[in-house]
Amino acid sequence: MATFEEQLTAIVFSVTPTEPSADAKAWARLDSLTKPPRSLGRLEEIAAQVACVQGTDRPNVDRKAILLMAGDHGVVAEGVSPYPQDVTWQMVANFTTHGAAINQIAKSVRAEVIVHDVGVLKDLSSMTGIVHVNVAHGTANMAQGPAMSREACAEAVLVGVAAARAAAERGVSLLGTGEMGIGNTTAAAALASALTGAAPEDVVGRGTGLDDEGVAHKAEVVTRALSVNDVASLDPLGVLAAVGGLEIAALAGVVIGAAECGVAVVSDGFISGAATLAAFRLCPAAHEYVIPSHLSVEPGHAVVLDAMGLDPVFDLNMRLGEGTGAALAMGVIDAACAMMSGMATFEEASVDGAGEPVIA
Amino acid sequence: MATFEEQLTAIVFSVTPTEPSADAKAWARLDSLTKPPRSLGRLEEIAAQVACVQGTDRPNVDRKAILLMAGDHGVVAEGVSPYPQDVTWQMVANFTTHGAAINQIAKSVRAEVIVHDVGVLKDLSSMTGIVHVNVAHGTANMAQGPAMSREACAEAVLVGVAAARAAAERGVSLLGTGEMGIGNTTAAAALASALTGAAPEDVVGRGTGLDDEGVAHKAEVVTRALSVNDVASLDPLGVLAAVGGLEIAALAGVVIGAAECGVAVVSDGFISGAATLAAFRLCPAAHEYVIPSHLSVEPGHAVVLDAMGLDPVFDLNMRLGEGTGAALAMGVIDAACAMMSGMATFEEASVDGAGEPVIA
Repeated sequence: MATFEEQLTAIVFSVTPTEPSADAKAWARLDSLTKPPRSLGRLEEIAAQVACVQGTDRPNVDRKAILLMAGDHGVVAEGVSPYPQDVTWQMVANFTTHGAAINQIAKSVRAEVIVHDVGVLKDLSSMTGIVHVNVAHGTANMAQGPAMSREACAEAVLVGVAAARAAAERGVSLLGTGEMGIGNTTAAAALASALTGAAPEDVVGRGTGLDDEGVAHKAEVVTRALSVNDVASLDPLGVLAAVGGLEIAALAGVVIGAAECGVAVVSDGFISGAATLAAFRLCPAAHEYVIPSHLSVEPGHAVVLDAMGLDPVFDLNMRLGEGTGAALAMGVIDAACAMMSGMATFEEASVDGAGEPVIA
Repeated sequence: MATFEEQLTAIVFSVTPTEPSADAKAWARLDSLTKPPRSLGRLEEIAAQVACVQGTDRPNVDRKAILLMAGDHGVVAEGVSPYPQDVTWQMVANFTTHGAAINQIAKSVRAEVIVHDVGVLKDLSSMTGIVHVNVAHGTANMAQGPAMSREACAEAVLVGVAAARAAAERGVSLLGTGEMGIGNTTAAAALASALTGAAPEDVVGRGTGLDDEGVAHKAEVVTRALSVNDVASLDPLGVLAAVGGLEIAALAGVVIGAAECGVAVVSDGFISGAATLAAFRLCPAAHEYVIPSHLSVEPGHAVVLDAMGLDPVFDLNMRLGEGTGAALAMGVIDAACAMMSGMATFEEASVDGAGEPVIA
């Protein structure tokens, strides 16, 4: 039996970039449509990217799903969040009754929300309406040692790969990342710092609502975690195991699985961004399958977006997570694909093209 | 019989700002929902604005419509557009067969597109699928004299007011502005310059695709129009008549009519922005009913947004018009209202609130 890491390696090796010739074909169609060329700016770029991912000049993202991964963090013992750890499972319950922001925003863009227990502390085995893929009941405190073992981390990544595959098999044509886990901005900050070399002070933020003192303490906890674990930046799986999280590892797997299946995936905010960066380090060929969404208020998000060479689509001053930014971006991506696939060409509509301005 | 200007004056006098107490009620609900307070940033501000417009803490924008106004411009005789003037009516025809960008983008956010012939040069009286409210077959060349008479301008504004009223009567809960008119970035630039005092060079842009020489010529045409017409900045109806457009005047009317009916209205790009600015000068009480959408590539848009104190929701490098930016923003506004109206409170969902971080 192959280890989880061996299984993951085989999957990573199977991911291929999109077909280079698809890009020219996409732009040929976009430039033939009844609008001044490139006048829809970023919207056209998004449509072209999805067209390349789908290998067609009529992209379609009619079926959308947010894959929401939940997990707990041992590092909350260091006092890094104003919310008690029970809020992780309480919010998972709230997702199942459609009471959370992600439920309402996803509904407005016609996206499903599929909630996975990858690493919640409490035993949720009797909870209905979620996918039961618990790898461990929370991570260990990364300020004292590794958050999880390398094999547990690989297993959590595979949970995400499997979730992406299952959605793709059901015909989902656009995936989004989402997460819930009290303490996970601290893990994301540690991961961002380890993978980019940025100082902990430059990647920690207020999370759900820390004051200045709390933010300084959080930076100190991240510094301690990076020191205790002596993480090697060039070993992304090792970094993810040492200072990541179960839900963060699963989201890295969602990105890799989406790329493996040839499905575009929208990356949400800071925590999803750190997971996406880890996915790119594990599997660089996944890059072209990812569409960024918003720029989070969390300062670490700009750092990881920059490290990935991704330009966020919008900045609405959001910092909630859950996949809310990804869901909002899905609305824009849907419009972009509808535009590219449904518009008439100048020829079809008998509309005259541009020439030189004529002075009467 | 009252003149058109007298009728418009009566409507403007009837517009009242939103109820001040509604704002506190909106934020009380937003802060009770299962998310860290204010963590959805701009999305919460948008929801609160619609809540105030609708006088409820459960805002709803289920029925959406883009009111698209089409008109021609005599100033195209000066060679200010690379597209022939026939493209105005050809695109109107394209709207009726759903071939244009606005049709596809509006469909993706579940908005209707209602196309009005306010001032198309060609006789479109036999065309089906549009609203026939032609005030005149195009404007006169503003570089030689006023684009239209004051009464024709007031009549065009009233066309927009009537369109907003008709939509509101059918239950539309969110309006958006859209336009089509070859040459209308030149009119919008002249209007923006006249109403804000900005130099013509600072408000003209490439429009549908002018080169540097074409942009310089366009600035010269705008300068000439402002000189010939000797427009008085403090007389917005006079300015709109002298250097506006029939579709631009109608869009100013849409904004005034939306405010009169208590319906929120999304302002599209540069041309809609110039029309909205004219509406605010005619009817300052309309301000709180308007939600901006994107920031256009056209440099004049930032100038008019700044003059109105409106901060665009996103910047996607777009410059198409037709209402495409307004339609995209409708998706975000829909999500914002769904969030505010559909989420559970901490109490309803039995989720613990924030406290002081605890170190274990």
